[in-house]
Amino acid sequence: MSSVNIGIIGLGTVGGGTYEILKERADVISKLVGGQVRIKRVCDRREKIKDELGIDEGIFTQNYEDIINDPEISLVVVLTGNKDIAYDIIIESFKKSKHVVTANKALLALRWKEIFNAARENNSHIYFEASAASGVPLIQGINEGLAANKIKSIKGILNGTTNYILTKMSRDFSTLREATESAVKAGFAEPDSTADIEGYDAAYKICVLANIIFARPVDFKDVYVEGINNIDIADIKYAREMFNLELKLLAVVKKNKEKVEIRVHPALLAKDDMLSGVNYENNGVLVDGNYSGPVMFYGKGAGRFPAASAVVSDIIYLAQKINYNIAGRIPYVNTDTSGVMPVENMDNLQFQYYIRVTAKDCPGVLSKISGILGDNGVSIASCFQKGHGRDLQVPILMVTHFAKEGSLKAALKEIDALDIIKAESIYLRIESEKKEEIS
Amino acid sequence: MSSVNIGIIGLGTVGGGTYEILKERADVISKLVGGQVRIKRVCDRREKIKDELGIDEGIFTQNYEDIINDPEISLVVVLTGNKDIAYDIIIESFKKSKHVVTANKALLALRWKEIFNAARENNSHIYFEASAASGVPLIQGINEGLAANKIKSIKGILNGTTNYILTKMSRDFSTLREATESAVKAGFAEPDSTADIEGYDAAYKICVLANIIFARPVDFKDVYVEGINNIDIADIKYAREMFNLELKLLAVVKKNKEKVEIRVHPALLAKDDMLSGVNYENNGVLVDGNYSGPVMFYGKGAGRFPAASAVVSDIIYLAQKINYNIAGRIPYVNTDTSGVMPVENMDNLQFQYYIRVTAKDCPGVLSKISGILGDNGVSIASCFQKGHGRDLQVPILMVTHFAKEGSLKAALKEIDALDIIKAESIYLRIESEKKEEIS
Repeated sequence: MSSVNIGIIGLGTVGGGTYEILKERADVISKLVGGQVRIKRVCDRREKIKDELGIDEGIFTQNYEDIINDPEISLVVVLTGNKDIAYDIIIESFKKSKHVVTANKALLALRWKEIFNAARENNSHIYFEASAASGVPLIQGINEGLAANKIKSIKGILNGTTNYILTKMSRDFSTLREATESAVKAGFAEPDSTADIEGYDAAYKICVLANIIFARPVDFKDVYVEGINNIDIADIKYAREMFNLELKLLAVVKKNKEKVEIRVHPALLAKDDMLSGVNYENNGVLVDGNYSGPVMFYGKGAGRFPAASAVVSDIIYLAQKINYNIAGRIPYVNTDTSGVMPVENMDNLQFQYYIRVTAKDCPGVLSKISGILGDNGVSIASCFQKGHGRDLQVPILMVTHFAKEGSLKAALKEIDALDIIKAESIYLRIESEKKEEIS
Repeated sequence: MSSVNIGIIGLGTVGGGTYEILKERADVISKLVGGQVRIKRVCDRREKIKDELGIDEGIFTQNYEDIINDPEISLVVVLTGNKDIAYDIIIESFKKSKHVVTANKALLALRWKEIFNAARENNSHIYFEASAASGVPLIQGINEGLAANKIKSIKGILNGTTNYILTKMSRDFSTLREATESAVKAGFAEPDSTADIEGYDAAYKICVLANIIFARPVDFKDVYVEGINNIDIADIKYAREMFNLELKLLAVVKKNKEKVEIRVHPALLAKDDMLSGVNYENNGVLVDGNYSGPVMFYGKGAGRFPAASAVVSDIIYLAQKINYNIAGRIPYVNTDTSGVMPVENMDNLQFQYYIRVTAKDCPGVLSKISGILGDNGVSIASCFQKGHGRDLQVPILMVTHFAKEGSLKAALKEIDALDIIKAESIYLRIESEKKEEIS
């Protein structure tokens, strides 16, 4: 029986899980590959990991060059967290005519063009299923299952950590800080989860997905990124009680004529929206194909084995191609790196908004506020004024009709300058699955 | 540029949609295949379809032998509805060393063994993505995306027609008959939808899915099939109002030690179960992998283009294999036709149940009923007695703890024989995503 030799670099959570699955499922894997997948070398900086994982004798190294320079290894699994080292390893592997599997979304989002140019020059493949929705087979679903379709949009909950935090906040009315601590305790957040909370992790992922569905990649700098750091629990409560809306951190990419919109931000969803039901550490992604209609992929967005499950699927299908000598002959992802996709400015996009204005409780307040909104082209769909607040301040809650974000921001700036306004106004975008407005 | 010649047999809803997509997306498809997919011949009994679809000159035939006997055609797309004709075409195509794409779930469920034996003997492939969940890339997801996993269970809403009907019944409180008429009108049910309503369509599909995840196929005769024909709208209302449960037609396959359970029947789901949110013509399928955890695939379970989207995906990836000369060399589905999977009898399975007993309103009724249930090993988790009915009959609504179906049936038989019982008792199985009991 033929065999494909692989090397794994990085034996952390995902790398360790990958090693374990490859050992446990060796029989099934070799049937699917049509040959044996042989783990020829594994690499990690930490020597103790060798015993912790029970690594086979003689295959462990602390120097990744041992893998890159081994001419018998044709597939390198790059699971080291450090972007710059991962980049070097990937490029060097391509140069040695090796193929690569990785889960490094930041690297793919930031250096897509260089990586795919290098892959093309060397007739190498790079697979990266685990980089978007962990164990959920999303990239393969888009790339293969929906291959016939023009993908009109992708909208999803792509970060398990923030989804866990928001679910906690919304169910237990805990603060962001308390919910984050609970996520760390449950193993769904790293002690430092800044990249998750600030929205960057989801932004890398939606950028990778955009790069798959469009020929030309998106420049990561053009992705609008807003995290959940400033979410006030009051708005989660009000939006649900008054308007039947649920707050999620949403990542969206959509083609509008010539330009694309690509954005990550907290968004309010109708209760009966499929994405509203995606709770805790789960991910859920709606992919809208022109023939298939909206297809949702849902499952664990975090955890050792879900991510390793995706990595091993990549290893199997890439090893199969290597084994039958067709790897690198058909592009896995159809990418045109001669330019970037033009991205629409957020200010030009139209949404419905939830607004909370905190004003002095005096006559004519509502008329003043709605007047300014109206002058800026923003009209109100529904409005609640919530009793008396502290110091005779009242929160005024509104849902608007569709309006340009630029117009809304201009209106809120004017409103916040009024002396009857007691705190900076809050607005949240409403994301609707349907064409009809929410009111 | 190399090319792969295909023939399409059957230009009905799905076949017509497939033809249209292949024409519209020819450019993208040839990039993915690494060569041109050329529609060399199309076949339908009805000559008028030629003009209706604007079929290219010179490729239409009314005789499918023209396709089977064309040595240049390497891929036959079999979309004729007639099972027996489809079977003959598929076997003949294999004998001529051709590969096949089909959407015929009944044929696959009923004659899996013969079809896969014939495919193996001739080194042919058969792909069938559209046979399980229409446009939702489910089979590919299981087969490839989750390839590393042992699949523990598949649970889903696999029939768009009955899901549309149940959604209508449950939202508008229309009768089965009214809801069915509305489904026909909306294009989500055929005028004769017996196979849908009686559960057979979903049963064929879950059987196909079982045959993918187990090495040995299931004998279709062993699948438990119960449709929605006897659903009373009263139970939809009571289950929701009293117990917060939603009724769906569910298809389930699960491995329990040596035997499998495989069944299609109406089932009550908790409101926060992901499958509860799958409404109208949509399908939703939860696949539980040992590493990935539960993964859900969701989307349109009916309609011309969703199904054709799946067929074209099959065509693309099979044509790619043909083009690179590896088709038939690696099994697409790992199947062992030397025996069948042993299936557990329904009476031995354990569920929680919703029960509605219609009894005379007299003292001691509840004690008698709960006594009989208890004697049969069925204990009650919660119970409601709903005011006075007609003729002093009262519906007694109960949810039980887990109990064997055989025990429940024995108890209800005893209960229904009591002279205080005014109508046959109704029971519905509760399907819970979680380990905890519903009460």
